[in-house]
Amino acid sequence: MTELLDLVGIFVFALTGALMGVRKRLDVVGMAVLAEMTALGGGIVRDLILNVRPAAFQSLGYVLVPVVATAIVFFWHPHVARGMPVILVLDAAGLGLFSAVGTQKALEYGLSPLHAALLGTVTGVGGGMLRDMLVGEIPTLLYDRQFYAVPALLGAGVMAALSSYGLHGWPATLAAAVLAFGLRLGAMRRKWRAPLARGTGE
Amino acid sequence: MTELLDLVGIFVFALTGALMGVRKRLDVVGMAVLAEMTALGGGIVRDLILNVRPAAFQSLGYVLVPVVATAIVFFWHPHVARGMPVILVLDAAGLGLFSAVGTQKALEYGLSPLHAALLGTVTGVGGGMLRDMLVGEIPTLLYDRQFYAVPALLGAGVMAALSSYGLHGWPATLAAAVLAFGLRLGAMRRKWRAPLARGTGE
Amino acid sequence: MTELLDLVGIFVFALTGALMGVRKRLDVVGMAVLAEMTALGGGIVRDLILNVRPAAFQSLGYVLVPVVATAIVFFWHPHVARGMPVILVLDAAGLGLFSAVGTQKALEYGLSPLHAALLGTVTGVGGGMLRDMLVGEIPTLLYDRQFYAVPALLGAGVMAALSSYGLHGWPATLAAAVLAFGLRLGAMRRKWRAPLARGTGE
Repeated sequence: MTELLDLVGIFVFALTGALMGVRKRLDVVGMAVLAEMTALGGGIVRDLILNVRPAAFQSLGYVLVPVVATAIVFFWHPHVARGMPVILVLDAAGLGLFSAVGTQKALEYGLSPLHAALLGTVTGVGGGMLRDMLVGEIPTLLYDRQFYAVPALLGAGVMAALSSYGLHGWPATLAAAVLAFGLRLGAMRRKWRAPLARGTGE
Repeated sequence: MTELLDLVGIFVFALTGALMGVRKRLDVVGMAVLAEMTALGGGIVRDLILNVRPAAFQSLGYVLVPVVATAIVFFWHPHVARGMPVILVLDAAGLGLFSAVGTQKALEYGLSPLHAALLGTVTGVGGGMLRDMLVGEIPTLLYDRQFYAVPALLGAGVMAALSSYGLHGWPATLAAAVLAFGLRLGAMRRKWRAPLARGTGE
Repeated sequence: MTELLDLVGIFVFALTGALMGVRKRLDVVGMAVLAEMTALGGGIVRDLILNVRPAAFQSLGYVLVPVVATAIVFFWHPHVARGMPVILVLDAAGLGLFSAVGTQKALEYGLSPLHAALLGTVTGVGGGMLRDMLVGEIPTLLYDRQFYAVPALLGAGVMAALSSYGLHGWPATLAAAVLAFGLRLGAMRRKWRAPLARGTGE
């Protein structure tokens, strides 16, 4: 179940990476690199910081799913791009899931709740940041005021809080992931906007 | 004492990160990410290379101080920006301190003096390089001819040399940090300039 | 023999880094940073993922050779740049060698053949990607359609395959490196081009 959800998250993140490749007119190699980095980058950074061998280098599925996503985008990208509203919803689900699972793994490896929540957030947003930096753009979440990172951080925080009250396991992870997912959807639908520094805004 | 000096260095580096966020019109999330990365990035890279859990993920203060710096810049950035001459001096102090402390930690973990000095320099300059890359700029120290990295390297080198003559502990660290700090101030005041490759200069 | 070939690869990669520094009008510090990162970046990323202390921080030669390359480019860069066709051939040799050696090291540390080949490829192409990102450019291999990464991946794959049939040691490494080198030369000479996503091409 964990593995399956993980693979769905990886697939969706990889789609956004490969689509970015098309938009930037990269070749198929560039598309595949972006797909892999977007899907696996957050988890790799998490595992490097936890000082363990990255999961991406131990699982066949983690590495192959982005290749499949690249092939789909390569052949049918106009169709995929038309499905962008769906992809954005799935991306929000992946964000919530990765943040919750990342927090849980960090807690298992002995980080404090605060640090675990922070590292869980990095797990959720790290791949997308790497994707943007690889194509020479400022990571979207730094400036677009869309509350992309904040739902991840809140979900991760709830995960860490539940865990420190002894609530581990799948129900807790799912609750935290769903919370982050819901907040992210809310932010998208209602156009909540992160503030700019005082005096520089509208 | 170590911890306190470290926190001062982190605070100043975080200020420069948050101010960069304002200059680039990032939102508050982007400001906080830049503050954290500028302040903690160099030490995280150092610890990844030493193959130990990064200190930033074990200390509450290290993570929270950049949040405070972000809040200050968020509300009072025109005042903070006016204090830039002071910030540049404090940044030079942070650079010297991080380079010396980073070298010491690298020596403790068994690196040779040369490699320890190199890793200490990475500790001092790494956060600022990440900050610049995150906002899509070439890291300043690569082209501005201002001798930003060289004082750090010389301070780190003296730290490593003192240590290999058996002079460990705070007095040595402080001497190395002060040397790097002084050289950096000298480079700023007297406008020492790093050379360009032959034939491409003035 | 290993060490010597490694140093030759490092030297050539460092030359391309320092030359990029001249082209971007960086100062001598920037040239040296680019030379070090181009030459050592791929191996450092490989070792971080294998969760071992990076080789670059244990060898004197690995760190000093890029300094020599920087000095040569600093004083004689017009001559060096005129030798670019030779450098491109040597760069292809370095690419093949690093990919094969990186794969071998990954296998020794227990990665599966597929993951080892992937990490070997990262070893070969990682330094150049870091070089391009540091100077604010999209890594060339993502868009230039030149099959830079694919020869590395094929060489790494052959290395992993040979190894899983029990063929270890220098002959196997050399065969894999030569294969990648030859494919890369072929791609350059015959202008093989990686495809763009369907409908976005010529």
